Amino acid sequence: MRSQLKALVFDVFGTCVDWRSSIAREGEALGRRLGATGVDWLAFADAWRAQYQPQMETVRSGQRPWTTLDVLHREALDTVLPAFDLGQMSAADRDDFTRAWHRLDPWPDVVEGLTRLKSRYVIAPNSNGNIALLVNMAKRAGLPWDAILGAEIARAYKPRPEVYLRCAEALGLEPAAVMMVAAHNSDLATAAGCGLQTAFVPRPAEYGPTQTSDLVPEREFDVVGTDFIDLANQLGIAPESVQ
Amino acid sequence: MRSQLKALVFDVFGTCVDWRSSIAREGEALGRRLGATGVDWLAFADAWRAQYQPQMETVRSGQRPWTTLDVLHREALDTVLPAFDLGQMSAADRDDFTRAWHRLDPWPDVVEGLTRLKSRYVIAPNSNGNIALLVNMAKRAGLPWDAILGAEIARAYKPRPEVYLRCAEALGLEPAAVMMVAAHNSDLATAAGCGLQTAFVPRPAEYGPTQTSDLVPEREFDVVGTDFIDLANQLGIAPESVQ
Repeated sequence: MRSQLKALVFDVFGTCVDWRSSIAREGEALGRRLGATGVDWLAFADAWRAQYQPQMETVRSGQRPWTTLDVLHREALDTVLPAFDLGQMSAADRDDFTRAWHRLDPWPDVVEGLTRLKSRYVIAPNSNGNIALLVNMAKRAGLPWDAILGAEIARAYKPRPEVYLRCAEALGLEPAAVMMVAAHNSDLATAAGCGLQTAFVPRPAEYGPTQTSDLVPEREFDVVGTDFIDLANQLGIAPESVQ
Repeated sequence: MRSQLKALVFDVFGTCVDWRSSIAREGEALGRRLGATGVDWLAFADAWRAQYQPQMETVRSGQRPWTTLDVLHREALDTVLPAFDLGQMSAADRDDFTRAWHRLDPWPDVVEGLTRLKSRYVIAPNSNGNIALLVNMAKRAGLPWDAILGAEIARAYKPRPEVYLRCAEALGLEPAAVMMVAAHNSDLATAAGCGLQTAFVPRPAEYGPTQTSDLVPEREFDVVGTDFIDLANQLGIAPESVQ
């Protein structure tokens, strides 16, 4: 199984990047500029992210046609702002704040881990983020992707199986030659159902200090790693293999 | 115009890589292994490539559904082999030889030029090659793309306008913020018609020493460069800007 592995595809929000702290950081800077005080920006980040699954479900169900995550993020922002007494924010500020999702910080192990994994395998995001979001994030954070895969090339949102299968097809590989890396049990369960190999890398602080979900693997995965560097080690890629 | 430039997208076959010499090199190695002597492998490369436009036209015209270039290359190989007395080649050898298009060598300036251009702009192929072909080529040759764009994400072949426009859309940019880089006047004429900026980088040896086409710009382009390093220089990116 391991011997036929050619590519690793990665969940991004939560697995590669710390969206919650990053959105709160951007919100704090924006709040200072606007003179908005007393906003709990971590709660704001949670509220914004809480729109994510129900929004995507409208696309998954066919209720609305294919719509990129940039558009969904902007609509969700419009929904969330009034509850935080920020309903007066200008359209230009809303547009820029929406692009905060392009400026998320990676977890500390991610750049080194991806660089090592890239020395042997094709690496690409398999994310619900759109191409522009993922490209801008990668440029800023130094994520050395070989290609940008995921929802936009499949025109469908995870966990629709076609998103996982389209990754393998785009790379010219059988699903079993591709490993899905994620911090979320449900993402990996679908990937396994599509025939991909699986690596669980928990991110116990994704939802803050009180997180209770996805702390441990809930089924058997091909690899369970503490972070991306540990994943590279378990796949037998030593630091000196990177030029 | 130049100030709004955010991304450069590149033709690949001929502009970034020397397909003719590379295919001939692969053919010579295969011929030695098979004991096939007296084959003019440069002529073979030309004959294989000559199938390219008529094949794609069957897709552009709607005569056949979307089909990747890997499939078209394999079909073209089947067509060309008998004329070179190679009709006995096994299916496995044909499959591997088809993947020679994943192993094309870049022109000598390309890796340094792209690396410098990447320090300021998003860079991506806008090629008729499929994603797997372009990813495998980039891994082998060290082409540092930020994303893999082109025909497969548009499900259409250049010069259909939607291929150029899909590049800009995928990057979240207006066409005028994207520059098409190509060694072919016709590619750039279509890009300009779609509102993209244009850079002509002639490759006078693409078709060998007797090439007569695309030696000079046939209309006004935003930049005309001698190679990718000259292009970086003309865009004001000094060597020391690359970390």
